[in-house]
Amino acid sequence: MRSTLAAEGYEAVTIEGLAADAGVAKQTIYRWWPSKAEILGEALLEGALPGSDVEVPFTDDLGADLRTWFAATSAALSDPEGSTIARALIAVIATNPELGERLTASLVEPIRSWVIRRLQVATDAGEVRADAEVIADQFVAIAAFDALLGRPLEPAWIEETVRVMLQGIAK
Amino acid sequence: MRSTLAAEGYEAVTIEGLAADAGVAKQTIYRWWPSKAEILGEALLEGALPGSDVEVPFTDDLGADLRTWFAATSAALSDPEGSTIARALIAVIATNPELGERLTASLVEPIRSWVIRRLQVATDAGEVRADAEVIADQFVAIAAFDALLGRPLEPAWIEETVRVMLQGIAK
Repeated sequence: MRSTLAAEGYEAVTIEGLAADAGVAKQTIYRWWPSKAEILGEALLEGALPGSDVEVPFTDDLGADLRTWFAATSAALSDPEGSTIARALIAVIATNPELGERLTASLVEPIRSWVIRRLQVATDAGEVRADAEVIADQFVAIAAFDALLGRPLEPAWIEETVRVMLQGIAK
Repeated sequence: MRSTLAAEGYEAVTIEGLAADAGVAKQTIYRWWPSKAEILGEALLEGALPGSDVEVPFTDDLGADLRTWFAATSAALSDPEGSTIARALIAVIATNPELGERLTASLVEPIRSWVIRRLQVATDAGEVRADAEVIADQFVAIAAFDALLGRPLEPAWIEETVRVMLQGIAK
């Protein structure tokens, strides 16, 4: 399911195709999952979501770590498989609000957690103000929009964005 | 089309329903528009897109104008009709990259234009540094993620976000 989706995209997956693959009647599929969005959503919840499994180790350079995160996440979201799964995920969130909330939580939590932990280290060291929540939300929004567009972020863009963010939380 | 979509959402619209409404055979519809995403996308391109038609007049207070923009855009994107259309729009962008590029351009351009014009006034007055492009992209990403979630931004969240952005571009 996940591999079919990654190879062919959201619109290519049909209830008919799923039923044929599983050797069951279409009605059997509809009985358990009322819509394609829900089937895909359940499948996506089972695996790591692209962009949310990026783990950038902490160095002693906050700006470098933030830039590395954007570059790694952007790469994960714009390679062909990552991009297709990320876009399907967004299509599911956009078409099914209830499932969307669970998927969004799964997607957002690891990103927020990484940003807040990294900024906590910097706050403890007296490097920045304690505005981690605001910056974490900006990371999430930028990653989500990047995933929707499916194109990599330019290094110069990452540089400028992180510079303005760092000045925004400077003491 | 647009009103059906606004009332019932992306998944409720079917090629069969469109054909019945138009009194034509399904094949007639498929001949012109190969997918539901494309039909909806064309319909959405005809009207103002929610969130992109927000026009906030300039006052002499940059922070107030940015906060007003977030509040107005969030309200437009989270009322029931705006939210449903915005989510359908995101679903189209996510499922059809080519059409997605045209829709994204239509959606993003008015937002970028407003932010860049407002920040140009502040830059000319010597109030801030010339980082309008970075801030404009953050506005777009935040608005898009807000639309995906379909929930209004909290006033306290807007306040904090704009404060960090303003410090980020302070001289």
